Amino acid sequence: MINLGIVGYGNLGRGVKAAIEKNADMKLCAVLSRRPEITQKELGDIPVLSSWENIILKDLKIDIMILCGGSKEDTPVQGPLFARTFSTVDSFDTHADIPEYFQKMNTIARQMGNVCVISAGWDPGIFSVERVLGEAYLPGSHGYTFWGKGVSQGHSDAARKVKGVIDARQYTIPIESSIEQIRSGYIPQLSKNEMHKRLVYVVAENELEQERIRKEIKEMPHYFAEYDTEVLFISAEEMKHNHSNLPHGGFVMTSAKTGDKHKQIVEYNLRLDSNPEFTGSVLVACARAAYRLKQSGHAGAFTMLDIPPAFYSPYSVEELRRKFV
Amino acid sequence: MINLGIVGYGNLGRGVKAAIEKNADMKLCAVLSRRPEITQKELGDIPVLSSWENIILKDLKIDIMILCGGSKEDTPVQGPLFARTFSTVDSFDTHADIPEYFQKMNTIARQMGNVCVISAGWDPGIFSVERVLGEAYLPGSHGYTFWGKGVSQGHSDAARKVKGVIDARQYTIPIESSIEQIRSGYIPQLSKNEMHKRLVYVVAENELEQERIRKEIKEMPHYFAEYDTEVLFISAEEMKHNHSNLPHGGFVMTSAKTGDKHKQIVEYNLRLDSNPEFTGSVLVACARAAYRLKQSGHAGAFTMLDIPPAFYSPYSVEELRRKFV
Repeated sequence: MINLGIVGYGNLGRGVKAAIEKNADMKLCAVLSRRPEITQKELGDIPVLSSWENIILKDLKIDIMILCGGSKEDTPVQGPLFARTFSTVDSFDTHADIPEYFQKMNTIARQMGNVCVISAGWDPGIFSVERVLGEAYLPGSHGYTFWGKGVSQGHSDAARKVKGVIDARQYTIPIESSIEQIRSGYIPQLSKNEMHKRLVYVVAENELEQERIRKEIKEMPHYFAEYDTEVLFISAEEMKHNHSNLPHGGFVMTSAKTGDKHKQIVEYNLRLDSNPEFTGSVLVACARAAYRLKQSGHAGAFTMLDIPPAFYSPYSVEELRRKFV
Repeated sequence: MINLGIVGYGNLGRGVKAAIEKNADMKLCAVLSRRPEITQKELGDIPVLSSWENIILKDLKIDIMILCGGSKEDTPVQGPLFARTFSTVDSFDTHADIPEYFQKMNTIARQMGNVCVISAGWDPGIFSVERVLGEAYLPGSHGYTFWGKGVSQGHSDAARKVKGVIDARQYTIPIESSIEQIRSGYIPQLSKNEMHKRLVYVVAENELEQERIRKEIKEMPHYFAEYDTEVLFISAEEMKHNHSNLPHGGFVMTSAKTGDKHKQIVEYNLRLDSNPEFTGSVLVACARAAYRLKQSGHAGAFTMLDIPPAFYSPYSVEELRRKFV
């Protein structure tokens, strides 16, 4: 049995809990929450604590802590803190800062004899793996990553900051004709707006301001100006009813020619009804890998690039060779 | 520089050679062939030998031998033979015999301090990896493997054995409506003939015998009787002109619900103009992994399930974290 703790109980934390319940070799032993009373009501018998020191005090045995806070403010602090005492899994996704974060986590984890899997999930994570594999199988290939159709939190937040906007939900939409071009074996150079378009649902304070709001969103630099952006106004009820789920997904495509002329195309894609539940499920698989890495004497930071596929699986290598190879 | 040898110079051996040329850190140092004179003419400066003992005699330095013979007769003999002296990569694909072959190779490779990657390629190989990852990310999921559209050598051979058949080429075709069902989030139970159909092009000796031949092929047990099989008669010229390539590909799909109701669908697919060139390219990536495993002190047999993704890549882990994560 692998004993797990969850740090931070928002959408992702809930996704991790749901995933743990589907894995017979896992047990959720503690949840750390900033609002322990409310979370305790939701979780019933599972110990909910407000501080990691309580875990030590209560002598709760935790093999792996899964960090479910945000990449902006939580994980950069919590990662190094928890790595001192626990093996961890996190989904740190600020791509530009990953090398530095890796170094920091690696130093602490090695010192303390822990295994810390960083930047896990689907991107970074699964998509990182598929990008590396695609390029390794087909050297000199051209790789493409498309995201969506799915909700981007960052772009939704940006639209929400426009004056007169009560609520906004932004969908990133991959451009199907570009994907079809790649599938057909053509290897195009694609600009940003040839890969994705943006669709923003907005609840506005005042109907008369719709044109101004639409213009401000569409012209917002970095977020929308470079893309074909559509802004649709809806009611608060429709927002709640039709846009409360967090679907997402995307494509990693690798295209190359081998020999003189043979087109070879690798496509990986995810269609996710719930981004946090899928990400949570991947983090739990990574927790199993972290546990096994530690059991086999490893210490340090790992990304999913450093982990053999068999380590994620509940099956033994013998079973895997018999049933899955 | 990683020094490679190729054992067996048919379609796959040629695919491996073409792939080596696309990898700047690799060098083809020797080819073993049963017809060394003919092969030497094709290969120019590269040493072509008829026996592995010549490699030892000539003191050629080989890091990894890539075994490109057939799984039926060649690899079961050559694998254990070469594992005594070399680290190897092979594409042994008799699924039922893989566990036993693994044990045999593992024992020898450990004894001799070599690394032997077995059953590499795309199925077994990449598809094995994706089946295991899909099931690990989504426990309790349903997994599907579809092959094609592509040429099956075994089924082509079977059709060729029918009396009056001069030549035959069999395409395995995945049933698109079943794939679409899975993509839409439905998790069907599919019988064999709901997953694949078979299309056989036949060159017949005598036009008058077409009906008998069609019937014999369509009713052949194991190979065709369980499937929707179409038999088309063509001329020898058309066979040569339109059916000399060896395209293939396929799909690994994993479908599950997380939480109470959220559909999560993972799809991996390959569209290959040339099966042997793609397989060759994967074997070369595995040779790099074998080299690194050996460099880092490992010995024994490995499948692609045991290899961290980063090991296949020509890039350093630092570069990978910077550019691909």
